[in-house]
Amino acid sequence: MGKIKSKYNVFRQKAQIIIYGTNTKAGRLFDLILLGVILLSVFLVMMETVEGFDAKYHNQLVFVEWVITIFFTLEYILRIISIDKHIRYIFSFYGLIDLIATLPMYLSLFFPGTRILSVIRALRLLRLFKILNHPKFTSQSLHMKQALNASRGKIIVFIYFVLISTIIIGSVMYIVESKESGFTSIPMSIYWTIVTLTTVGYGDISPQTPLGQFLAALVMILGYGIIAVPTGIVTAEFAKRNTNQETDLNATKTTCSSCGTFTLNKEAKFCYRCGNKLNNNN
Amino acid sequence: MGKIKSKYNVFRQKAQIIIYGTNTKAGRLFDLILLGVILLSVFLVMMETVEGFDAKYHNQLVFVEWVITIFFTLEYILRIISIDKHIRYIFSFYGLIDLIATLPMYLSLFFPGTRILSVIRALRLLRLFKILNHPKFTSQSLHMKQALNASRGKIIVFIYFVLISTIIIGSVMYIVESKESGFTSIPMSIYWTIVTLTTVGYGDISPQTPLGQFLAALVMILGYGIIAVPTGIVTAEFAKRNTNQETDLNATKTTCSSCGTFTLNKEAKFCYRCGNKLNNNN
Amino acid sequence: MGKIKSKYNVFRQKAQIIIYGTNTKAGRLFDLILLGVILLSVFLVMMETVEGFDAKYHNQLVFVEWVITIFFTLEYILRIISIDKHIRYIFSFYGLIDLIATLPMYLSLFFPGTRILSVIRALRLLRLFKILNHPKFTSQSLHMKQALNASRGKIIVFIYFVLISTIIIGSVMYIVESKESGFTSIPMSIYWTIVTLTTVGYGDISPQTPLGQFLAALVMILGYGIIAVPTGIVTAEFAKRNTNQETDLNATKTTCSSCGTFTLNKEAKFCYRCGNKLNNNN
Amino acid sequence: MGKIKSKYNVFRQKAQIIIYGTNTKAGRLFDLILLGVILLSVFLVMMETVEGFDAKYHNQLVFVEWVITIFFTLEYILRIISIDKHIRYIFSFYGLIDLIATLPMYLSLFFPGTRILSVIRALRLLRLFKILNHPKFTSQSLHMKQALNASRGKIIVFIYFVLISTIIIGSVMYIVESKESGFTSIPMSIYWTIVTLTTVGYGDISPQTPLGQFLAALVMILGYGIIAVPTGIVTAEFAKRNTNQETDLNATKTTCSSCGTFTLNKEAKFCYRCGNKLNNNN
Repeated sequence: MGKIKSKYNVFRQKAQIIIYGTNTKAGRLFDLILLGVILLSVFLVMMETVEGFDAKYHNQLVFVEWVITIFFTLEYILRIISIDKHIRYIFSFYGLIDLIATLPMYLSLFFPGTRILSVIRALRLLRLFKILNHPKFTSQSLHMKQALNASRGKIIVFIYFVLISTIIIGSVMYIVESKESGFTSIPMSIYWTIVTLTTVGYGDISPQTPLGQFLAALVMILGYGIIAVPTGIVTAEFAKRNTNQETDLNATKTTCSSCGTFTLNKEAKFCYRCGNKLNNNN
Repeated sequence: MGKIKSKYNVFRQKAQIIIYGTNTKAGRLFDLILLGVILLSVFLVMMETVEGFDAKYHNQLVFVEWVITIFFTLEYILRIISIDKHIRYIFSFYGLIDLIATLPMYLSLFFPGTRILSVIRALRLLRLFKILNHPKFTSQSLHMKQALNASRGKIIVFIYFVLISTIIIGSVMYIVESKESGFTSIPMSIYWTIVTLTTVGYGDISPQTPLGQFLAALVMILGYGIIAVPTGIVTAEFAKRNTNQETDLNATKTTCSSCGTFTLNKEAKFCYRCGNKLNNNN
Repeated sequence: MGKIKSKYNVFRQKAQIIIYGTNTKAGRLFDLILLGVILLSVFLVMMETVEGFDAKYHNQLVFVEWVITIFFTLEYILRIISIDKHIRYIFSFYGLIDLIATLPMYLSLFFPGTRILSVIRALRLLRLFKILNHPKFTSQSLHMKQALNASRGKIIVFIYFVLISTIIIGSVMYIVESKESGFTSIPMSIYWTIVTLTTVGYGDISPQTPLGQFLAALVMILGYGIIAVPTGIVTAEFAKRNTNQETDLNATKTTCSSCGTFTLNKEAKFCYRCGNKLNNNN
Repeated sequence: MGKIKSKYNVFRQKAQIIIYGTNTKAGRLFDLILLGVILLSVFLVMMETVEGFDAKYHNQLVFVEWVITIFFTLEYILRIISIDKHIRYIFSFYGLIDLIATLPMYLSLFFPGTRILSVIRALRLLRLFKILNHPKFTSQSLHMKQALNASRGKIIVFIYFVLISTIIIGSVMYIVESKESGFTSIPMSIYWTIVTLTTVGYGDISPQTPLGQFLAALVMILGYGIIAVPTGIVTAEFAKRNTNQETDLNATKTTCSSCGTFTLNKEAKFCYRCGNKLNNNN
C-alpha cells in the first residue's frame, strides 16, 4: 500500500517537473510539444470553418480532434494531480480555460452540432503569452509592460475623453444625417464615429449631406490630431525608460577621497580634478 | 417669518454642500447619482432611436424619461437657489446646458414630435469631464493639458498648412477626375482629400483615371508623412514634461540652514546664495 | 514734368509701403484685405462647381468674380510698378501665380467655357503661407521647418525604400490575384499597395483569393510597422530641438574665479564648491 | 597564347573595376546606367500589363525587352568572369536574382506565354537598395538601420502579441457575426481583424449585428491604442541615437599627452588614467 503511494508520489513529482518546470530538458520539451499541439488544434478549428475543407477531410479532422482532446484531457488531469493546490488551479484563469478547451468534443457526443464550440480552444493561445517569460524576451517584455503600465493612467483619461466625444459627435451626426445614409440610430452613429475617428473608415456608412460631410471632415482632422495623444504618451514613457536604462548601466560613481569630486567613468584611476589616486574597486 | 427664512437658509446651505461640494460624503454621493442619471438618460435617448426598441417599450421609455426630466428640473432649481450668484450660473455654459436638457420633454407636451430633441441631453455628458478634476486623475490630466497647450501653437500652424494644401489638392483633383468618379464639385473633392490625407479612406469616392490614381498615391504618401508631424509635436512635449517630472522626483534638495535657499546640486558644499556651509550628507 | 514724376514716385513709394510693407498699419490692413479677397475668390470658385448653386446665383457670381478679377489686376499692376526689380517679380513664383490668377476671366470673354480655369486661383492660397512669417508664428514655424529639414535625409531614404517595396509587392500581388478582383495591371496593383500600406484602404480593390488576403495581411502589418519610421524620425528631431531650446535658454554659465567650478544657476552668488563670491553680472 | 591570356586578364580587371568599383568614374557611370536600365525594364514590364498599351506598342515592347535582356545577359556574364569567386557570386542572393531576371525572355522563345514571367525582373530593383551605401546616404541609413535593429526585439514581442490577439478576436467575431456579413470562416475573420486593427478598413467585410459592431468598435479603439506601441519603440530608439550623436558632435575631447587617453569632461585637469596634468584650454 505504502509502496503504491510512494510510486504515485514519484510519478506526481515527475509530472510536476515536466508540466510546471521550465528549467529541465523534459520540462522545456513538454512546453514545446504543448505549444505545438495548441497551435495545431487552433489551426484545425480554423480550417474546419473554411467551406469545402471540412467536407473533404471530415473524418481525418474528427480523428485528429479526438487525439488532441484526449491529449488535453490527460494534460488537464496531470496538471490537477501534480500540483499541491488542486482547487486553486481548477478555479484559476488558466485552469478554467484548460477545462473549457477539452469539453466541446465530449459535449458533441451527446449534443450533435456543438463541435463548433471547440472554437473556444483558441483561448488556450493565451498560454502562448507565457513564452514571453522566457529569459530571451523577459527584459524586452518587462520593459514594454513597465512603459505601458506607466502610461495607463493617461491612456484611461484619454479613452474616457474619446468615448464621451464619440457619444456627442454621434448624436449630432444622427440629427444632421438622414437614415438613408446609414445613420439609422444613435448607436449606429456612434459606431460610425468610432470607425471614422480611428481612421478605419469602412465606408459602409458615410455622410451624404454637405453639412454631414463638413462635420465628418472635422471629425477626421480631430481624429488625426488625437491619434498623436496615445502615441505621445507611450513614446514618452519608452524614451524615459530608454534614457534611464542607459543611465542605470553607467551609474556607479567613484568619489575622490582628496577633493570629493566624483566620476561615472568606470576606467578612471585618477581624479580628473586634483590628480589624486582613486580607490576604484569596480 | 424669520424662522422660515432661517430654515430656508439652512436648506440652501445643505443643498449647496450636496450639489457643489465634492469633499463631503453626501456631495460625492450626489455626484455619483447625477453621473448615473445622466448616463441612463443618454442611454435611453440612444435606445429610443433604435428601430423596434421604441415600439416595444414606448410607455416604459416615456415614464422613465419623465422621471429623469423631473429629477433634472429639481436639480436645476436647486442649483439656482443654492448658489449665491444666480444669474451667473443661469447664463454660464453648464447652466444653459442644464436648462436646455430639461426643456424637450416639456415642449413635447405642446408640440408633439419634439421629444427627439432630448438628444440634446447628450451635452450633459460634458459634465462628466468634471470627473477629471478628481484627485486621482488631476495630475494625469493636468500633465496632458499642459503638453497639449504647449503644442497648440505648432498644431495650429500645422492644421493651417493642411487646410490650405487640402483646398489646392482638392481643386487639382476636381480638374483631373471626372464627375462620374464622385468628384462632383470642389467641396466634394476637398472632402475626398481630407478623407484620404487622414487615411480614413471610405471608398465612397475614389479616383478612377490613371492620373487621378497617381495623384491620389502621392496624397497618401504625403498623408503618411504628415501624420508624423502632430505626433512629433505632442510626443516631444510629453517627453520634455516627463523628463522634467523625473528630475523633480529624483532630486534630493539640500536646504541652506542660514538663508533657506535649496539646491538640487548634489555636489554643492556651500549655499550659492549666501555662501554658508551646507550639511550635505548625500 | 518733374512734378508729375515726383508725384508718381511718391505714389510708388506709398504703394510699396502698402503692398510689400508689413510693419505699417496700412500695410497690415492691405494684407488682411488681400487675404480676405483671396479666400472669398477661392470660396466662390468652389461654390461655382456645386451643382444648382451656379444655376441659382449665376449673375451674382459673375459680377463678384469680375470685381475680384479687377481687384487682382490692379494689385498685380501696383506690385509691378512699386517694386524696383520689375522683371524679377514678374518671373518669380508668386509673380507668375498672381498673373495666372487674373487671366481666366479675361480669357472667358473670348473663349466661352474657360471660366472654369479660375480654379487656378486656388494657387493664390499659397500666399497665405506668408502669414506664417508673422512674428506670432515665426518661432513655431521656424522650429517645425528646422525639425523637418533635419529629418529630410532620413525621410528620403525611407520613401525610396517604401517606393521600391511598393513596386515589388505590387508585382507579386498582380501575379497572385486575378483581374476580377481589380488587380488589372501592375500599376493598378502598386496603387492598391500604396492604398493599403498607408492604411487608407478604400476597398475599391481588395484581394479575393486566400493567398492574396494572406499577403495583404502581411502588407498591412508591414504598413503598421513602417508608419512608425517617419513618426520616429520627425519626433526625435522635435524632441532634440525641444531639449536644446530648453538648454539654450538656461545656458549662461558663471565660472568661479577661485576653484574654476561653473554653475548654470543664474541666481548663484557664491560658488557651491568653495564658497567663493562669484562675479555674476546676469 | 600568353599574350591572349594577359589581354584577357587586363579585360577582366577593367570589367571588375567598371562593374564592382564605385570609386572610379567608369564604375559610377556603369552603376548609373545599370540603375537606369533596371528602372526602364521594370517600367516596361509594368506597362505591358496595362490593357491596350501592349496591343498598341507590342512590337516596340518586344524589341526593347530583347535589348534589355541581352544587356542583362552580358552584364551577368561579365559579373561572373570578372570576379574571383565565380561560384560564390552565382549562388549568392543577387547572383540568383540576376540570373532569374534574364531567363523569362529566352524561355518565351520555347514556351509562348511565359513572357509574363519577366515580372520577376522587378526583383532586380533590390539592387537599388545598394545605392543606400552611397556616402551621401550612408550615415542616414546606418542611423536608421541601428535604430530599427535595436527595436527588433520589442517589435517581435509586439507582433507576437498582436498575432495571437488577432486569432482570438477573429474566432470571437466568427461566432458573433453571421456568414452573410462576410465572416465566412475563421481565417476570413482573422483577415478582417487585421484589416481593422491596422486601421486599413476596406469595408468589403464589415460587422452587421449590433454585438458585432460593438466588438468591432472595441477592436478599433484597441488598434488605435496599439498603433502607439511600435511608434513608441522606434521613436525612443531614434531619440536615443539622436541624443548620443549630439553628444558626440559637441564633445571636445582632451587627449592626455602622456598615455593618450582622451576624456570628454570639460572640467578635467588631470588624466583619469595616469594622473598626468592635461593641457585643457577650453
